[in-house]
Amino acid sequence: MAAIGSEIERLIQLLAKLPGLGPRSARRAALALLKKRDTLLEPLAESLREAADAILTCETCGNLDTQSPCAICSDGRRDPHILCVVEDVADLWALERAGVFRGRYHVLGGALSALDGVTPERLNVAQLLDRVKLGVDEVILAMNATVEGQTTAHYLMDLLGDRKVTRLAHGVPVGGELDYLDEGTLSAAFKARRAL
Amino acid sequence: MAAIGSEIERLIQLLAKLPGLGPRSARRAALALLKKRDTLLEPLAESLREAADAILTCETCGNLDTQSPCAICSDGRRDPHILCVVEDVADLWALERAGVFRGRYHVLGGALSALDGVTPERLNVAQLLDRVKLGVDEVILAMNATVEGQTTAHYLMDLLGDRKVTRLAHGVPVGGELDYLDEGTLSAAFKARRAL
Repeated sequence: MAAIGSEIERLIQLLAKLPGLGPRSARRAALALLKKRDTLLEPLAESLREAADAILTCETCGNLDTQSPCAICSDGRRDPHILCVVEDVADLWALERAGVFRGRYHVLGGALSALDGVTPERLNVAQLLDRVKLGVDEVILAMNATVEGQTTAHYLMDLLGDRKVTRLAHGVPVGGELDYLDEGTLSAAFKARRAL
Repeated sequence: MAAIGSEIERLIQLLAKLPGLGPRSARRAALALLKKRDTLLEPLAESLREAADAILTCETCGNLDTQSPCAICSDGRRDPHILCVVEDVADLWALERAGVFRGRYHVLGGALSALDGVTPERLNVAQLLDRVKLGVDEVILAMNATVEGQTTAHYLMDLLGDRKVTRLAHGVPVGGELDYLDEGTLSAAFKARRAL
């Protein structure tokens, strides 16, 4: 296409690789960037540069931060005796937004999947077992409620032996309407009903 | 939030300003970038830097390119006597993808809108009239089929006086099903029917 120079074309192709952006929305994003040069294009270029230079993977827990051990692992106020195991950094972020957990995390880097060839060796399982040996009272398995997530949780539960292992509760999402929930969730919520 | 460092937080905020990305998808995009450092983060930072340094607005037509006049305006094989007026660079790109037009463009930079305070002075209207005076046989008004677009087209038609002015045809989109079309489009397609 003569009208789009190779620089813009390359920018569009790279933007289209981001999750949530297809070829069409990547073009719109590129145009928005080029129109808002001072308020968007320059700051984003700068921010990406800084991120590329500064962000590390925490060698202890697998979190992303500018330091390793990360801010959570080096925060003395957070209980090192409770480990919350998550599949992905995004899950860690989600739990931090909820602000409900004051222990430490362990990021597996995925979930077991025979289909995608994800074996225990490709996840941070060995590191988890090493950390648990250093004195952990409770391991919270906060995997996704998917087949892969639950398979991973069962696998870890077997490995962790007679330690205290817990998982997140299943039930009706806060704000959720029963009518829109799947049978599995409703059935789990019903079985786990509590006295008022 | 302690878990997300200020660098990542800033990256997410900037990504969320892109059209098509909300706060949630901006977080997913930031995470994808940080995970694919060599294949995505570094190249995108580089590409944005290049775009910021190299991309100009063509002083003749308003297109975006690394040169001004742009590649289209300086292409001797493209007919300078036919001008296609579009609202936005995205529309120019769309027409170039269709590959149907071999003349030159003029990008207005928007459409007239009393509601948004877009007056003719805020669009590249004066430059259009200057270009038309230099010898143009036909002006194609390729505005969007919206109220603002059509208002702009009528306004320009009045200004252009007795020159040959055309607009794009309205009708059934290729591949479109009648059942899903609005009454306005159907009515326009019906009135403009052609002999087979």
